[in-house]
Parts: sequence; C-alpha cells; structure tokens
Amino acid sequence: MIAAVLEKIGERLRVSNIEKPTLLQDEVLVEIIASAINHRDIYISKGEYAAIKTPCVLGSDGAGKIVKVGNPVLNNHLGKEVIINPNNNWGDNENFQSNNYDILGMPTYGTFAQFVKVKVDRVHEKPKHLNFKEAAALPLAGLTAYRAIFTKGKLETGQKVLINGIGGGVAQFAFLFAKAVGAEVFVTSGKTEKLQASKDMGADKGYNYKDENWHKQLNAEVGGVDLVIDSAGGEGFGNLLKIMNPGGRLVTYGGTRGKVTNLSPQILFWKQLNILGTTMGSDEDFKNMLAFVSEKKIKPTVDKVFTLANINKAFDYVNAQRQFGKVVISA
Amino acid sequence: MIAAVLEKIGERLRVSNIEKPTLLQDEVLVEIIASAINHRDIYISKGEYAAIKTPCVLGSDGAGKIVKVGNPVLNNHLGKEVIINPNNNWGDNENFQSNNYDILGMPTYGTFAQFVKVKVDRVHEKPKHLNFKEAAALPLAGLTAYRAIFTKGKLETGQKVLINGIGGGVAQFAFLFAKAVGAEVFVTSGKTEKLQASKDMGADKGYNYKDENWHKQLNAEVGGVDLVIDSAGGEGFGNLLKIMNPGGRLVTYGGTRGKVTNLSPQILFWKQLNILGTTMGSDEDFKNMLAFVSEKKIKPTVDKVFTLANINKAFDYVNAQRQFGKVVISA
Repeated sequence: MIAAVLEKIGERLRVSNIEKPTLLQDEVLVEIIASAINHRDIYISKGEYAAIKTPCVLGSDGAGKIVKVGNPVLNNHLGKEVIINPNNNWGDNENFQSNNYDILGMPTYGTFAQFVKVKVDRVHEKPKHLNFKEAAALPLAGLTAYRAIFTKGKLETGQKVLINGIGGGVAQFAFLFAKAVGAEVFVTSGKTEKLQASKDMGADKGYNYKDENWHKQLNAEVGGVDLVIDSAGGEGFGNLLKIMNPGGRLVTYGGTRGKVTNLSPQILFWKQLNILGTTMGSDEDFKNMLAFVSEKKIKPTVDKVFTLANINKAFDYVNAQRQFGKVVISA
Repeated sequence: MIAAVLEKIGERLRVSNIEKPTLLQDEVLVEIIASAINHRDIYISKGEYAAIKTPCVLGSDGAGKIVKVGNPVLNNHLGKEVIINPNNNWGDNENFQSNNYDILGMPTYGTFAQFVKVKVDRVHEKPKHLNFKEAAALPLAGLTAYRAIFTKGKLETGQKVLINGIGGGVAQFAFLFAKAVGAEVFVTSGKTEKLQASKDMGADKGYNYKDENWHKQLNAEVGGVDLVIDSAGGEGFGNLLKIMNPGGRLVTYGGTRGKVTNLSPQILFWKQLNILGTTMGSDEDFKNMLAFVSEKKIKPTVDKVFTLANINKAFDYVNAQRQFGKVVISA
C-alpha cells in the first residue's frame, strides 16, 4: 500500500509502497478516504516530541471504510463508514491518561496511508452530516477542544469565552463548540485576516495580540471573560489573567511560546481563578464530542486539501502557521 | 475602651482609649478575650494592601463573649461564648467573593480591642474543645486552609499532599486538616527547626526548599503528590509541577516570593494538572470548617501569646517569619 513514511527525524516524509498491515483478532482494516494533519505530526517529524520511533507512518486523524476484519465475528462491521478515535489505552481515570497511553500515528502506524489497522473499539460511525474530508478533520482536534471547552472548561450558555490564537484546528473547534452552546465568543490572532475570517464566522469581537494593550481594550469593551482557551503560554500568558472574571477558568492545551514568565499569584488567588491543563481527551470525551457534533450539526472548518502524494507541501503549510482550520489529506 | 489603632500607614500601632462602638439593630457587641494576628494585619500596617483606610483597628480573628445586643430580640445571645466569622458580604456565589466583600479589621474596626461589634450572623458558638486562645487562632487561617484543602483541593483519604512552607498559620491548619482525613502529608521549609517541629507533629517527610534538588529527592522518596498547597509563588513555583501526580491540584493562596517566572505549559497540560487560586472562603466554608474542627477535635498550633499592650512586639515577631503556628493576643 502507499504510505507517507518518516524514515528519520528531520527528513521529509517519503511517499512509498509498504506492506499492508496484518490484523489481530480484535482489529479492523480501514481504507483511508481522508486524513488530517495535526501539529503533533509536524513536531514528531522535526524531532520535537518524546520517545520518537522511526521508521513510522504518522497521522492521528482518519475517516474511511472498513474493508477487512480480523475475526469473522466482526463481519457486521465490513463496509461501515467510520472515523477513528486516535486514543490508545487512555485508562480508567477520566482525569488523566494512563502511563500506557499513546496516540495513533507513532508508535503505531497512522493514517497517512491507504490503509490503517485499529482495534474495533476505536472506530465510530461517521457523523451523517459530514463528508469524509470533514469527518477526517474532526478526531484529534475535536477531542482536544471538547475536553478543553466542556470537560475542563465547564462552559455554559451565555458565558463569555476567549479563544487565544484562532488559527489552529483545536482553536477552530473550540470556537464552533462555544458558539453552538450559545456562548459569547471572542478571539485573538496576530494576523488581521484571521481576525476578519473569525468575525465572518460569528466571533463577537477579535483582538490582535501583537497590540500590547489588547487586553485592556477587551476589558473596556467586554468587561472580562469566564473562560480562556490557550495554547501559547509564554510571556503573554500573564495578561490572560487580567481579562478573566472572578472564578474564571483558563484552560491550556499547548505551549508554543514556551514557559510562562510573569504569572501573578495575587491575581490568581484574589480572583479565585483556575488554570487547567488538558491534552487530548478520554474515550468518554470522544463519544460525547461525536454526539455533540452530530446533535449540533457542527461542520469542521477545512482550510485546504492536499493529496497524499503532496503531503510534504501540506506539512510546510501547517508549519508556517498559515492555516485557518484543518488541513486535510485526501487519498 | 482600649484598642490598638493604626493611625497612619507605616506607623506602629498605638494602644489607646477609643470610643466603644454603638450597635445597629442587627449587631452584637463581643468582648474580646483573645484575638490573633494574620499576615493581612502586617501588610495593611506596612501599606502593602489595597484601599487602606486609616485610622482603623486591625484584627480579623477574635473569640469572646457577647455582652450587648442591638435589639431586645437578640437578648438570647447575651453571654454566649463565640468566635467570629471575619467575612463581610461574601455574596451568593460559592466560587468567588462579591465586589462588596471585605474582611473584618479594616475598613470595619477589628478585634485588636477590648470590644468589637459585628452582625449577629457573624458569630458562631465557640467549639467546646477549644479555649479562647485556641479559638481565636482559628477563623481566618482555618477558613483559608479549609477552602484550600477541601473546597478547592478536594483532598481525599489516602492521597498525598505537600504543604510548601510550613511556618505560617494557614499552612499549619492545612497540615492538621490533611492529617485529620488520613492523608500522607509532606512539608517544606527553609528552616531545619521548622522541619523538625513538623516531623514531631506527624509530617511523613520534610524537605528544605533551599536545597535546589529537594523536588528530585521528594520524587525519588515519595513518587509524586496529588495536592500541593502553596503561598509563595516566585521562581520555585515551576518545580512544584514536577512533583505532582497526573491530574494533581496545586492550590495557591499567596505570593510572598512574587511572580511565577518559569511555569512549563507542557508539564501542565501533559499531566492534566490544575492550578487553583483561593482566598479566604465563603460563609458555607466557614460553617463546614467549624463542624470539621469540632468533629475531628482539631487544636490550632498556638506559637506564642502576647498581651494587647505588647501587640507591636507580636507584629515584629510575625513579620520576621519566626512563628510556627498562630500568634495570639490576649485581652
């Protein structure tokens, strides 16, 4: 089968022929119709991730059809249109992943290929209102956003939320999920075109975080938010506390700007704020996310589609942070 | 009546005769038998607090007897032995205090006096197992510790907790409360004599935070904790994340070392950690704290007792961070 293989850290992916996977009894083979890129894939290819094993096939997001099963008992699954839960071994505690946890697409071979094998309990029916490209955009980013917004962030109708840095896939889903429950949603970006695009999608207000007074302006115009979703960290993090209402939650799922250098304990304790770290989500979160997306008929923002043959161009595009929404790979 | 008056910021307290308070209909007059010092009193006297009004009588902690009531309907309260809830106007949201919130002892006249007037709903029966000096040690620090350990920190029997900086009053109560529910309790201090005293009180292990590898040693010996209680902040804060178990809570109620300068978002999100700010506690927390202290027969650690005439010496003692437990003022 054709697959995009990372042979060594720091190299481009090599689109080549590799052996089709052999199934265990509890596994199914999914023919990938569409997959999608996450920052995780980029980090691994550059060597900026823990415990990298090569060669490997990256890719955590995939949607397609079940074309083979490891056991006749599973025959009823054949032909099903599915999306894949990228979690392996989350474990039995909803609050955190187990020590055995990993994510589809390194070390296990992932979705940047014609076929992927997964355990049968990893596949879920593709939401009916989504085509395969939209469905492929959903798993990892949708799961991360769902846990950030609801499981950890406890967002409620009518509350105010700021999505700090609106370009990426998780931020997009966070935006869509927050709008879907009737929250007021504010965004930041360093790029005016992304702020404009967010307003076109229904953002209540947008702020350019390169303007050093953006948080004062937000306070003046909005009067504080109940929830902040951040993946930057860095020296801008301290300002996020200043725009939060008492009792507010700041949920962080990334740290692209590095260590937080100016966090005020006084603001934190006096306003009774909560800073909540989150990554991925449990299998329960995944199921809840799918049900929510289906109920609210949420459509992922698909920015661009590349073919598997052009996957390195897609990596460059995401690496340059040019995307607004998900970058999808079609078979 | 005799009272210790702060006439101007930066000055010593002046122990002098001032007018006895006049009661409103819903108020009672408490004859103070013992009061206790909190860092808040020191900060206010030095001008390191928001919206200071002088002249004023400081003091948030007090225990004594009701000697007068503002309304004959309240006559049944006369003679009761009480401790005082230092909250004014917490408000109706358990998650945070209202905008009208203040604390007894500036702007309202506090307990460093022969008498204090408070609303009748601020007084609670003195726990029977405590004498007046012990009872006076309880309100502000006990309330803060209770909210930190239970309401925010959700400590459960058998979990591991680190009290970072064991000298102060809140830390002492946090220690006693955690032991009382059967947690394993670890402590840090910069002073070996405080570490020794903690072990004598039943600390499972103690670490000197001046040793830069203390957190590695704790990890090796203890294998991580579920809850950290901190009031320092500063550059040591980042290391606290390294000793936390996945899903752990770091509750912070102070920032004596200033801004946090090296917080890793990666540790925060990958371990699904929660940093929870807290200050004081709601009226509900206060009631729950009193019930808990009575049920578990918890005795506050009273370090030293000074007379009201010598209150400036008591301030110097606390300001020098020499105390281990509460510093009490007797009438």
